[in-house]
Amino acid sequence: MTMPDSSLDTLFTFLQFPSVSTDPQYQPHMVACAGWLDARFQAMGFESAVHSTPGHPLVLARSPRVEGRPTVLIYGHYDVQPVDPVALWSNPPFEPVLRDGRIYARGATDNKGQILAHILGTESLLAQETELPVNLIYLIEGEEEIGSPHLAAFVRSHAEILRCDVVAVSDTGMVAPGLPTLTYGLRGIAAMEVTLHGPKSDLHSGIYGGAVINPATVAARLVASLHDTDWRVLIPGFYDDVRPVEPWELAMWDTLPDGEAAMLGVSGAPALGGEVGHSAYARVWARPTAECNGIGGGYQGEGTKTVLPSRAFIKLTFRLVPNQNPQDILTKATAFLEAQIPHQIRATIRCGHTGQPYLLDPQLAAAQAAIRALRTTWDRDPVLIREGGSIPIVQTFKEALGVETLLLGLALPDCGAHAPDENFPVENFEAGIRMHRFLLEELGRCLSPTK
Amino acid sequence: MTMPDSSLDTLFTFLQFPSVSTDPQYQPHMVACAGWLDARFQAMGFESAVHSTPGHPLVLARSPRVEGRPTVLIYGHYDVQPVDPVALWSNPPFEPVLRDGRIYARGATDNKGQILAHILGTESLLAQETELPVNLIYLIEGEEEIGSPHLAAFVRSHAEILRCDVVAVSDTGMVAPGLPTLTYGLRGIAAMEVTLHGPKSDLHSGIYGGAVINPATVAARLVASLHDTDWRVLIPGFYDDVRPVEPWELAMWDTLPDGEAAMLGVSGAPALGGEVGHSAYARVWARPTAECNGIGGGYQGEGTKTVLPSRAFIKLTFRLVPNQNPQDILTKATAFLEAQIPHQIRATIRCGHTGQPYLLDPQLAAAQAAIRALRTTWDRDPVLIREGGSIPIVQTFKEALGVETLLLGLALPDCGAHAPDENFPVENFEAGIRMHRFLLEELGRCLSPTK
Repeated sequence: MTMPDSSLDTLFTFLQFPSVSTDPQYQPHMVACAGWLDARFQAMGFESAVHSTPGHPLVLARSPRVEGRPTVLIYGHYDVQPVDPVALWSNPPFEPVLRDGRIYARGATDNKGQILAHILGTESLLAQETELPVNLIYLIEGEEEIGSPHLAAFVRSHAEILRCDVVAVSDTGMVAPGLPTLTYGLRGIAAMEVTLHGPKSDLHSGIYGGAVINPATVAARLVASLHDTDWRVLIPGFYDDVRPVEPWELAMWDTLPDGEAAMLGVSGAPALGGEVGHSAYARVWARPTAECNGIGGGYQGEGTKTVLPSRAFIKLTFRLVPNQNPQDILTKATAFLEAQIPHQIRATIRCGHTGQPYLLDPQLAAAQAAIRALRTTWDRDPVLIREGGSIPIVQTFKEALGVETLLLGLALPDCGAHAPDENFPVENFEAGIRMHRFLLEELGRCLSPTK
Repeated sequence: MTMPDSSLDTLFTFLQFPSVSTDPQYQPHMVACAGWLDARFQAMGFESAVHSTPGHPLVLARSPRVEGRPTVLIYGHYDVQPVDPVALWSNPPFEPVLRDGRIYARGATDNKGQILAHILGTESLLAQETELPVNLIYLIEGEEEIGSPHLAAFVRSHAEILRCDVVAVSDTGMVAPGLPTLTYGLRGIAAMEVTLHGPKSDLHSGIYGGAVINPATVAARLVASLHDTDWRVLIPGFYDDVRPVEPWELAMWDTLPDGEAAMLGVSGAPALGGEVGHSAYARVWARPTAECNGIGGGYQGEGTKTVLPSRAFIKLTFRLVPNQNPQDILTKATAFLEAQIPHQIRATIRCGHTGQPYLLDPQLAAAQAAIRALRTTWDRDPVLIREGGSIPIVQTFKEALGVETLLLGLALPDCGAHAPDENFPVENFEAGIRMHRFLLEELGRCLSPTK
């Protein structure tokens, strides 16, 4: 099967919406992007609507229901990460270009290219007048990159409409080019921001330095306190609920291409490093972290400015593994950090979004169907991995709809998700369209329909 | 004596030049500001010229030399600190306003208001056709706020022209309103910036977090490593050359208005703090510091962005006291910080400007003359203090010209030097004009002229 040129055109149109969810100024573009998706589903004959939320709207579309067939819910998101530092992009992030077999744009991989592959797969089935082998539900939200604050509530309040037998998501990665990958585990997340207020305005560091406590120094101390010299997290009780990795997982991961080399190449860091006693794969997939996503205080410009800053901030996220609980971790982290604030500094600790870690049993029928679909698509045995990222809604699908989620990612390690020059190989885009068809066929065969 | 209205007009004109030395985009304004000063001195009948340097120009002006009279060099600077965060200003920083007896503008206190008081003092003497009691040299530079990188070389290469008996500088502070203050000590300074490079671009903190060392965390660790829990600096050998404070100094400082209360009020910090075992005055005037003037890395915007940053930076200045040597401190700090850089991070340590600490013997004839001039100006006994700020050129005057410097500051603790809403009381501006006249008379009487 060769992908029609119109598929690429469609992807380019999708990528041109600057649908940055974290920054309120992009709000009109969010609405426009959701509307564009809705129109596409309408044209396919689906029952589709844009649903407003207290934040950005989501799109819910359903194929005409045929009794006796299982139902598959495809989840994705149309929002993207911010583009800064924009100076590091080779092309404007919302003006997609095709270069050396890859599509470059913000959202190319995460998640527009991947969710669109599913949509175009469905369209190609319908275009051939082939009946869909399953009932299909598309749920595409606009708040994934800010932690899906309104999606869980929507899923719970629309549980009847969303009733399905399994969920499929392409928002994860492949270990290497051409190596089909089923992801059966995800890390959870818990976000937090600490703002430290010292003097009421920036002070002259000569006139006051020594007698006024510096909030930037206190911010630095908080971040420094998170790890010991072996990069183990020092928050008391942080590792209490961490479930050890099973022997079959370590054995499977040992068969994978060298993870250290791949990560090193993509990251461009002088060397890798992390918690002692674990491989690079285990560090990212099966061990929790305490990460400083941002720190700032005092003079940020060129040269020297001899100020004692008025305030400083740190932005932290904790990546969590089964069976850690995000709220429990936030409680422990808050107590740990609060205890370190000197009385000369006023601190505001704000807990942000959370997401549960996730683990799927690969022996389940739907997982086996996904493995077969991946094998057919790429003509090669898939590998089974966990991932370091977080898709909190997966846990919500389990709790609210009682279903598991198949994570069939199409991103490569060098696709630059969340980074400048994000890109998506045309080859993976095409494979995604094929895979969608094989997956629906396999699931249609093996699943009993919803009662 | 009442100040003529034109004095305020003149100060407003001076303050309207946005003469920010640290940012190259203001370069044309620097040239214009120096030219304005030069024209003023020309009009006074001084031999004046704008001298270019590899950086910003300086102005050198000399009264017609009269043999048999001592020579006094007045030093000041026309450059100012950057204005950010500009949102915290009540008026645009280069559009001066008079409000409640104070002039608000960047540079109002530091140093345009103070140096202009001297110039207007000279002009008022000349307007009355009074002969100047001393030969006068004005040296006004444009690089004080960036560490005077070219002034020392100029002073050394122009030592013959700059030959004088004493230097007078108004770029320091008064302990309280109406309390005349002679500053006999200054802290030195040594600046340094460390940039930490990790991955080649920002990474997804889920996909890489745990296996790639975070440069923001390393930056935080460096800053946190500078002090122990008692806020003593931990760089080995940092305190080796610190000269203890003498008993008469502690006794004098005990007579001053409550320094803790004044600093607390101006700073607006929840409480003061610093190195244990020292008073607030001693912490700022006689103890060295390691200050973080800026720290940055990762996401700086609103909300959460789950990145593992590519780079982070810290900007540090050390304030030094006699007999610490700035170069020695930079060497020790560099070794201390370098030893902490993990091999996964590439660090660039750049040493910045330095300035020696300074100490004047208040028993010297010129110091006693200054004390008398201060007493006459304010009708009150002056107090003798040190200051926490740095005026490195004072040490150069001593080494290159063999003269001491009188520090006759007019700034109040709440004048906001280096901060938003910098201001200067009209009362202090007027007193500075008077003081200049008394000072020249006292020095003319007590000093033997240059041989």
